[in-house]
Amino acid sequence: MSQLRVLIIGGVACGPKTASRLKRLCPDADITMIERDSLISYGACGLPYYVEGEFLNINALTHTQVGLPRTAEFFEKTKGFKVLTRTEATRIDREQKTVTVKSLDSGETRDLPYDKLVIATGGSAFRPPISGIDLDNVWFMTHPEHARTLVDKIKDQGLENAVMVGAGFIGMEIAEALIYRNLNVTMIEMFDQILPGVLDKDMAAYAQIHLEDNDVDLALGERVVGLEGDDAGKVTAVRTDKRTIPADCVVVAVGTRPNEELAREAGLLCNRGILISDNCQTSDPDIYAGGDCVVNHFINSTVTQPMYVPLGSTANKHGRTIANHIAGLQTPFPGINGTGVVKAFDYTVGRTGITETMAQKLNIDYESIVWGGPDRPHYMKDARYFLIKMIASRRDRKILGVQVAGAGDGAKRLDVAASSIYYGGTLQDLADIDLAYAPPFSPPIDPIAVCAHILSNKMDGLAKGLSVDDVKERMDQGEVVLLDVREPDENKMLKMAYDKVIHIPLGEVRERLDEIPRDKEIITFCKISLRGYEAQLILEAAGFERVWFMEGGHEAWPFELDYLGM
Amino acid sequence: MSQLRVLIIGGVACGPKTASRLKRLCPDADITMIERDSLISYGACGLPYYVEGEFLNINALTHTQVGLPRTAEFFEKTKGFKVLTRTEATRIDREQKTVTVKSLDSGETRDLPYDKLVIATGGSAFRPPISGIDLDNVWFMTHPEHARTLVDKIKDQGLENAVMVGAGFIGMEIAEALIYRNLNVTMIEMFDQILPGVLDKDMAAYAQIHLEDNDVDLALGERVVGLEGDDAGKVTAVRTDKRTIPADCVVVAVGTRPNEELAREAGLLCNRGILISDNCQTSDPDIYAGGDCVVNHFINSTVTQPMYVPLGSTANKHGRTIANHIAGLQTPFPGINGTGVVKAFDYTVGRTGITETMAQKLNIDYESIVWGGPDRPHYMKDARYFLIKMIASRRDRKILGVQVAGAGDGAKRLDVAASSIYYGGTLQDLADIDLAYAPPFSPPIDPIAVCAHILSNKMDGLAKGLSVDDVKERMDQGEVVLLDVREPDENKMLKMAYDKVIHIPLGEVRERLDEIPRDKEIITFCKISLRGYEAQLILEAAGFERVWFMEGGHEAWPFELDYLGM
Repeated sequence: MSQLRVLIIGGVACGPKTASRLKRLCPDADITMIERDSLISYGACGLPYYVEGEFLNINALTHTQVGLPRTAEFFEKTKGFKVLTRTEATRIDREQKTVTVKSLDSGETRDLPYDKLVIATGGSAFRPPISGIDLDNVWFMTHPEHARTLVDKIKDQGLENAVMVGAGFIGMEIAEALIYRNLNVTMIEMFDQILPGVLDKDMAAYAQIHLEDNDVDLALGERVVGLEGDDAGKVTAVRTDKRTIPADCVVVAVGTRPNEELAREAGLLCNRGILISDNCQTSDPDIYAGGDCVVNHFINSTVTQPMYVPLGSTANKHGRTIANHIAGLQTPFPGINGTGVVKAFDYTVGRTGITETMAQKLNIDYESIVWGGPDRPHYMKDARYFLIKMIASRRDRKILGVQVAGAGDGAKRLDVAASSIYYGGTLQDLADIDLAYAPPFSPPIDPIAVCAHILSNKMDGLAKGLSVDDVKERMDQGEVVLLDVREPDENKMLKMAYDKVIHIPLGEVRERLDEIPRDKEIITFCKISLRGYEAQLILEAAGFERVWFMEGGHEAWPFELDYLGM
Repeated sequence: MSQLRVLIIGGVACGPKTASRLKRLCPDADITMIERDSLISYGACGLPYYVEGEFLNINALTHTQVGLPRTAEFFEKTKGFKVLTRTEATRIDREQKTVTVKSLDSGETRDLPYDKLVIATGGSAFRPPISGIDLDNVWFMTHPEHARTLVDKIKDQGLENAVMVGAGFIGMEIAEALIYRNLNVTMIEMFDQILPGVLDKDMAAYAQIHLEDNDVDLALGERVVGLEGDDAGKVTAVRTDKRTIPADCVVVAVGTRPNEELAREAGLLCNRGILISDNCQTSDPDIYAGGDCVVNHFINSTVTQPMYVPLGSTANKHGRTIANHIAGLQTPFPGINGTGVVKAFDYTVGRTGITETMAQKLNIDYESIVWGGPDRPHYMKDARYFLIKMIASRRDRKILGVQVAGAGDGAKRLDVAASSIYYGGTLQDLADIDLAYAPPFSPPIDPIAVCAHILSNKMDGLAKGLSVDDVKERMDQGEVVLLDVREPDENKMLKMAYDKVIHIPLGEVRERLDEIPRDKEIITFCKISLRGYEAQLILEAAGFERVWFMEGGHEAWPFELDYLGM
């Protein structure tokens, strides 16, 4: 039997993972990985943290934990597969089963034969078609060199005014990094919210306040039309459809596009990314693809359209699936939840599954809830407030999606929700899981379980919540009466900016029902609407017919509030 | 139709939860909750944190977030059910459907009728039958009064030498609290490990080092035989089977026993806890029970024996199930995973599912792995090392149990594992879940997924790991050769205390195979045994037949090590 020849195009995440795993499974295989760049296997996700100063040597992203550079020689010696850097694949010949590669140093080309081919060509930052995009001091943050030059120029040129174009995950991370570097940061986003496509607008609005509190100047619903430069070719300003913003530093992060040209030219099926089977095979079964160059499918049939979500975590899963399949093991990749998370200053913001906006577009009969509260018992010093938004199907009460935003430990709750969505869990399941409870970690009923309870109650017609957006809309129409059921001290410190508020502490509501008009819509609230919900139930039991509580309480209110003496 | 009369015995966790939920579902029900104590609805889990000084006013445990005391009046006004405190239930008459209650203030008794009865009498700290247990300054930490007097006496009497009897969850929390209060702390445990019954010995050993590093004097495998006191009746020493330890402060936490006497006397089935159905009904369908007075069953058929795991989180779930069932909603309680977690200084220690010891006792065909590594990418400042031990069934590769110990974020991984066990997930499932990835939260392949991968590899015969205990045993027999594949700098700083160690950095192993004896057992290792695993594969591919890697690397080694110049 002749030796199995495996050729891998791309050396950042999926490529090295495939090669390493396959060499372990098939020590005799002849594995070659080629990469256009001189660097391989680098942690691109760490770039914003180098910019931030979280670590001082960019080598941390290209070296192992003990400081060995992950070079071609490193992989050959430790893992036993060959690596060719500065080598570009220019053409795939599926008939001959060869790939034409070109040395970027010598210019030589040659054909490499394969039995199995793996395409892991990754993605590229989208370059918007606007003037000035090639000016100096305009960065796309995808390569260690980009981060290194940005940091060097901040020091050498004393850059002061940064403009972020795009408010996605990378935009958020870089904005934080540049604020910590003491630059002025304006973040421009053409949609009217941060993290468009990731979060619903109400959750985004809550996170936006925190960005602004940390001096990020948000320019939402504003479109960049061009960049201006000086005679030396350096960027000087960003022109939008509304104004011109001075800038000596521009970082553009408006999305990633799959590098699918090579696959497309070889006649492989693509649709905004290379199409792959569960085993990561392309339309040619001898050619696999994985990582940022492919489109993924959702974990279940909730979403049938392919989803392009380029992530290092998914790329590694693809690599394992590909190596296993080549070695004869069936470990199909089940798909993604669309999970994403970002640290934005003191907030954790993210989602798993689908958003309410997506549920509406998909015509799903859903119900949603926003819950706000502390992530630990209130008596623990480290308890932090955060919001959870949960969306579930009315038909079978399965969890469809969860979003988090706030200072509380949302990452843990996202992971529990991602697990429940993976396994097809219902609201009842999510509330029943025996999660790890102790006061340093969570309240006795975990927030994610509380959220599942309230959403169940809402579907049962027991809890009648309104989102802050809905409350605001009814307040603007002026018909509704707000019932503040907080204690007098709380009411003194902070009030809703509205003229029809009745204040009755929860403990007095039962005795003072006659102060509440029966012919009006009543919206109850407190700090987090736990008492607001109790008040809704008390009023309903007393025969009030149009009562709702405000979801998340005034802590979740992203609009104006009247603070004591301010 | 007459009003539904519901009587609830017990007012700490399950009782108030049942009453509150039921009143929301059935506003017209006549609900009365009785409690022997004067306090109701307090957060007993917070007692160690009051002792620690995490919060300064014990009222935080008995008051709401906004500072309202959770008194009888509070519940009556806000929730709408009646509360009788200082009232003890002395007898249940199932024929007449009445409960005889006695006022502890007036001594009066009367019979209260019920349609549905809920027993939520909780548990009591086990009082070991030893002399001196009633001396002053001996505490059982179950009531706010205990924590308050302990803190007061530390201040007033200048207590210096504390002895913890028992190294379970509460013992660990109190030990930490007293160290932070600058007391000398000796922790006595009759088993030869901390957290017996919770952790396997290898995981416990790792956590024990951290306790000792934080000045807890561990006395394991030592049995307390009596307490000694002075003429004033204050404790002065703890006598064990080995010695006498001076002590002016003793905290006993050797387990909880269910308060089942009332149920037992009424003829309800009990077996180290009241037996309940999925709907929390006792053997009398009109009588429910929940919280620390009942035994639970495991989430699936892995464990068929009832498990007594008293926890506030479970008590709340029981309360909801009971209220729902009384109101006509079927939401059966599916059981527990045996999940538990504790913060011990900078470590998170806990488990979900079963331990290896339990798997052995249950005669399950299992495989296990210990993994050690950072919880975030190594370049992040907050990355912290921790161990995960995972146990899975060989038959169907379902996750059986997970333990964590270390400074890394183990609570999140426990919750993901608890979810997977709840849903009956396999190793492949656990590795496939689309967990939330970004560098501040996790590496691209989450540690829990890495662990699932390695355990799969082990079952496939690919990864051959040995636990540190097994390695130690073979070293003690003197036959085995250790292969240190770390870099020269690492080897210089820290060595295994053993005379048969060959040192060849991983990158040179392929070229220096002739330095490694083929006729010996070889155990490879590095810091966390990622390279150790690679070396095992290289040697096997080169024809070595008896090669293992040391699971967790030297970071997981709980025995002696030679540090540079020490």
